[in-house]
Amino acid sequence: MTAEWTLDPDRYFDPNPAQRAAARDLYAQIAALPIISPHGHVDVRLFSEPEATFGTPVELFILPDHYLLRMLYSQGVPLEALGIPCVDGRPVEQDHRAIWQCFAEHIHLFRATPSGGWLDHALHDIFDIRQKLNTDTAQVIYDDLAEKLVAPDFRPRALFERLNIEVLCTTDAATDDLRHHQAIRVSDWCGRILPTFRPDAVLNLDTPGWRTHIDMLSAVSGIEVRDYGSFRAALVQRREAFKALGAKSTDHAALTAYTGQLTATEVESIFQRALKGEATAEDAVRFTGHMLIEMARMSLDDGLVMQFHVGSYRNHNPVLFAAFGWDKGADIPVRAEFTHNLRPLLAELGNNSRLTLIVFTLDESAYARELAPLAGHYPALKLGPPWWFHDSPNGMRRYFDQVMETAGLYNTVGFNDDTRAFPSIPARHDVWRRCACNWVAGLLVCGRIDEESAQAMVYDLACGLAKRAYRITE
Amino acid sequence: MTAEWTLDPDRYFDPNPAQRAAARDLYAQIAALPIISPHGHVDVRLFSEPEATFGTPVELFILPDHYLLRMLYSQGVPLEALGIPCVDGRPVEQDHRAIWQCFAEHIHLFRATPSGGWLDHALHDIFDIRQKLNTDTAQVIYDDLAEKLVAPDFRPRALFERLNIEVLCTTDAATDDLRHHQAIRVSDWCGRILPTFRPDAVLNLDTPGWRTHIDMLSAVSGIEVRDYGSFRAALVQRREAFKALGAKSTDHAALTAYTGQLTATEVESIFQRALKGEATAEDAVRFTGHMLIEMARMSLDDGLVMQFHVGSYRNHNPVLFAAFGWDKGADIPVRAEFTHNLRPLLAELGNNSRLTLIVFTLDESAYARELAPLAGHYPALKLGPPWWFHDSPNGMRRYFDQVMETAGLYNTVGFNDDTRAFPSIPARHDVWRRCACNWVAGLLVCGRIDEESAQAMVYDLACGLAKRAYRITE
Amino acid sequence: MTAEWTLDPDRYFDPNPAQRAAARDLYAQIAALPIISPHGHVDVRLFSEPEATFGTPVELFILPDHYLLRMLYSQGVPLEALGIPCVDGRPVEQDHRAIWQCFAEHIHLFRATPSGGWLDHALHDIFDIRQKLNTDTAQVIYDDLAEKLVAPDFRPRALFERLNIEVLCTTDAATDDLRHHQAIRVSDWCGRILPTFRPDAVLNLDTPGWRTHIDMLSAVSGIEVRDYGSFRAALVQRREAFKALGAKSTDHAALTAYTGQLTATEVESIFQRALKGEATAEDAVRFTGHMLIEMARMSLDDGLVMQFHVGSYRNHNPVLFAAFGWDKGADIPVRAEFTHNLRPLLAELGNNSRLTLIVFTLDESAYARELAPLAGHYPALKLGPPWWFHDSPNGMRRYFDQVMETAGLYNTVGFNDDTRAFPSIPARHDVWRRCACNWVAGLLVCGRIDEESAQAMVYDLACGLAKRAYRITE
Repeated sequence: MTAEWTLDPDRYFDPNPAQRAAARDLYAQIAALPIISPHGHVDVRLFSEPEATFGTPVELFILPDHYLLRMLYSQGVPLEALGIPCVDGRPVEQDHRAIWQCFAEHIHLFRATPSGGWLDHALHDIFDIRQKLNTDTAQVIYDDLAEKLVAPDFRPRALFERLNIEVLCTTDAATDDLRHHQAIRVSDWCGRILPTFRPDAVLNLDTPGWRTHIDMLSAVSGIEVRDYGSFRAALVQRREAFKALGAKSTDHAALTAYTGQLTATEVESIFQRALKGEATAEDAVRFTGHMLIEMARMSLDDGLVMQFHVGSYRNHNPVLFAAFGWDKGADIPVRAEFTHNLRPLLAELGNNSRLTLIVFTLDESAYARELAPLAGHYPALKLGPPWWFHDSPNGMRRYFDQVMETAGLYNTVGFNDDTRAFPSIPARHDVWRRCACNWVAGLLVCGRIDEESAQAMVYDLACGLAKRAYRITE
Repeated sequence: MTAEWTLDPDRYFDPNPAQRAAARDLYAQIAALPIISPHGHVDVRLFSEPEATFGTPVELFILPDHYLLRMLYSQGVPLEALGIPCVDGRPVEQDHRAIWQCFAEHIHLFRATPSGGWLDHALHDIFDIRQKLNTDTAQVIYDDLAEKLVAPDFRPRALFERLNIEVLCTTDAATDDLRHHQAIRVSDWCGRILPTFRPDAVLNLDTPGWRTHIDMLSAVSGIEVRDYGSFRAALVQRREAFKALGAKSTDHAALTAYTGQLTATEVESIFQRALKGEATAEDAVRFTGHMLIEMARMSLDDGLVMQFHVGSYRNHNPVLFAAFGWDKGADIPVRAEFTHNLRPLLAELGNNSRLTLIVFTLDESAYARELAPLAGHYPALKLGPPWWFHDSPNGMRRYFDQVMETAGLYNTVGFNDDTRAFPSIPARHDVWRRCACNWVAGLLVCGRIDEESAQAMVYDLACGLAKRAYRITE
Repeated sequence: MTAEWTLDPDRYFDPNPAQRAAARDLYAQIAALPIISPHGHVDVRLFSEPEATFGTPVELFILPDHYLLRMLYSQGVPLEALGIPCVDGRPVEQDHRAIWQCFAEHIHLFRATPSGGWLDHALHDIFDIRQKLNTDTAQVIYDDLAEKLVAPDFRPRALFERLNIEVLCTTDAATDDLRHHQAIRVSDWCGRILPTFRPDAVLNLDTPGWRTHIDMLSAVSGIEVRDYGSFRAALVQRREAFKALGAKSTDHAALTAYTGQLTATEVESIFQRALKGEATAEDAVRFTGHMLIEMARMSLDDGLVMQFHVGSYRNHNPVLFAAFGWDKGADIPVRAEFTHNLRPLLAELGNNSRLTLIVFTLDESAYARELAPLAGHYPALKLGPPWWFHDSPNGMRRYFDQVMETAGLYNTVGFNDDTRAFPSIPARHDVWRRCACNWVAGLLVCGRIDEESAQAMVYDLACGLAKRAYRITE
């Protein structure tokens, strides 16, 4: 019989004994700190309904995780076989046991991937699984998970508490009425789930259905959007509504980092064209570039931290998009440029310490070249953690390597898990904490910092930086 | 007297004792596996002639190796002094002993370069040299090599067998009549040397002498190329001829990864302009972009794997090119973009698992940003091994580091040696196997994979992935 | 009571015992070699006046160091509080004790940064400080430093000798009359301080005040600049004047690496437009691109080595620039391209071994992709050391990693400290020497080079390459 399956207690630490020992000591000091999750995509309804459950193992682990879906798809597994609903309503696999079995049969695809590590962590630490998932064990493990998932201890609110999550921020459309956040707020449950203001669908004129989103904005804000002035007023209203429910930040995504101020006449005429459905592609680019500066100005006024995620080409695969819609793993990064593109915004607002603008990139070549020098100069600018494909042990190592010497630790903001897959949250924070301790341990054993600095740094990496950057107070 | 010159048995392994021990164990399991060489540039005539020899040590080691030539040239050694024939017929060094001596006097230039490591491996392991090559030993080693090179044991076919090469693919123009491949096929020698279909000279309208290549294509295919339709038919015919002699793949090179579909009218009018010698630079770019999609379609039909090498600026040095012609080391990489450029091809054909498109880059900044995410999504797309300047211990480490977490091991294709320097083949595969084992050992000692996965991974890296990707069966 | 503050004698060496031991042995062989500083920005007046002092600790350490200023500024410390004079003459902090205290209170910002390491080195090794600088010790350390700085042993000339600097090159405008260099030359002090010819202000037509610089050029050269011919003649005259005072090289900076030859008519008409103040932005780009080729031709004639620093967007922050002027840390890198941009220059002059063109980049993605292949081919081209933000332990590791396999060590030029902060000179060279020894030690313990090569390489990295590349003889 096989030995019990376990996780290596020293995983992600350098094999050199001196560095490993130092990393282990540092990790021991911060491993149990509460999780601060200032940016992510977990569905708020899991927490607004007291009796909500995570559903089946497939609903918990596979369906919301486009990291898993894309890898299986890349190796010829059709999304239909994984139970992903089709836009045209064609039949897809409904048997979650069969989906789980298919997943287990392809588990070797996740060797040495971050997804593989997160899955192992969740199975082992959250669900106490002690067998390695593979073709043979798939059904037994399914049974075990399914049984636990109906138990009260494994409901979202219970897990939130058990996993020691201090704050979890969701991401919510500007047009969201926030009723689920409101429900948590008025409930007797005191888990701290906060909304984040994400107005992309109304700021990017080329969003499919933009006009409908504008109508929704009018409805939810109570301000009829007829021109740029009323549009701006409606956005201010929504930001206030988000703030009232505890929001700490806004979030913005664009293909490029372009920012640029329009004149009042230009912006009004673009907005009017958009209302008539006549905006051009160039209008859309210029309008977004303008609105990013507007958002930074509003952040100065209302104190919401501004997040900016740059460089994802959304829905790159038109065949898949037509069949299955958004967020199925076909978002592909493009090269990014920040030095020229952010200058208009930074020239106006970058010297103001009261503004916090956190930038995220999928183009690592910009870390050392542009982002670290910019963050290491402008008081308003901070650099977000390694994002998406770079949220991985290697991605973190490259980030520490290429960012920290120039930006300095204190111009970074700790970690974001940025996930819609709830059980990966503790796993992702644990990988970050381990990799951060390993990095700091490396500095220590190479004589670059002393023990006192090392301890302060790992605390800040685990919690302090995120709390301060996102203005999260007790 | 000096100790005998040897190679470090643990070379390329991490100095950490735990990782080194694990790497050594893994390497022991795969070091002796046969060599699969699915892409390279060795001259087929070395094998089609039973009595062929490699010539002098200079003809074996120096003349075909532009990696060596460029480094010597960069430090002021004229190519004339190395015996490279001039286009204008001016006298060049004919004394191979003098050339070898000159090479040995500059051997320090190759410190810590891959070329230095490959040379050491070939001298030590293939030719049993036990003295370090330097100014003093150059002539003794020349004598030793020269004596061996005329012996039957050191003829190409004998070495092919001794080096345990299971398959060696050459690269052949679309207009090649494949007579040498045919000769091997009908001979009693059963070494497996397979052609690869490389139609660049007819697909790239700006190839010098394109019109002549088209006439050769007409002649060899028996289809008179008069318009786009007959051009396409001739290509189909040649692909079939290559397949009949065992070809597994096609190979394509372009300065950028641009792909784009032309209408029937557009492609015909560009082709007619080209036939009249009136094609513009823009025509050439658009035609190549169109033909890449056509080649992918043909691959779907005939099952040939499609290779695409992107980003080399050929013959950058006009002075050297005028004097010595192609392939003298003056090909310089340029920045590459894949997310936008490959989209037209992938949108049409990327979701088809029956197509295999293997992409190679000289721009490592695209590894983590574009290529790993693309290969980690599209079923048809795989990422080729580190190419050319990146076929090195550091290049491999960066490749494993930046590609594998996102693409996953199974969307890569093992190793290509891609060389015209035959004795570097075992050396290059050995470096790959050592570096692969070291990478996997690093994952193992950091608790990221288990022993079972490690063993499967190193086998796949050495042979399995290449065999499957290139559809090489026993 | 606390233990005495010391520096780790093994700092920057890998923690692996075998590599560390090898690094330590190699370092012991080269640590005490004299410092060769072929490129930097120290003020020559420190040495031309025999009685010059470095002033207060703040004048020595903080005011000339934009690395420190930018980091403090990024965390909200106004430059006024650091005593930086304002353009508008508004009052700024005059109390150097208060400035030093403010600096000490922010010392944690420099954790794991190169600046932090340089400061520690200077305090410990030059000034014998044995307490860690922090809020509590700031004033005591200030007293200690201030007392030493007035002593004869700490005057610039004395320190130059004590720090074992063999050659220190400054950077001087083409219009500089070099009177301070002349003063050193005719003095009885034999420290070797050499000028470097930096004509950016007259080659870049968009330099603020370009016309004034031209008048200065006329005055200092004695050649009235009225047209392109007299402009060129004046530059030749200045190069001769610099050479006469020992200059080894010229230095050029541009936003991009663009080079391109203009016709005689084009260049004259652009020059005439410039004289009239009518040059366009495009004129400026084309003129600089032309002048770079001219400078390379002049270098072939007069033997001055040509340095080219590419890719810094100067004065990115308009608010700061308006208030405080140049060199306050708001220069931000941009992406760089060399393969296309350098081709016109290299096609004409790159094959000439008598020319030495040393290129520096702030865009590391060009190391392995463009610069190492170019330097590994063209006899005239060498690659400069890691520059500016990359002059750091990690930056050096990435440079060795990405450059050396392809360029070869002998197409690089050792180290430049490139600093205006005099006390960081020995610290920067020490970091380079340690990191170089650690890199070579890594090659040694991985069996990639032998001991004989290792010793030769570390000597060359410390001194030999710089001396040969910059043609510095005894």
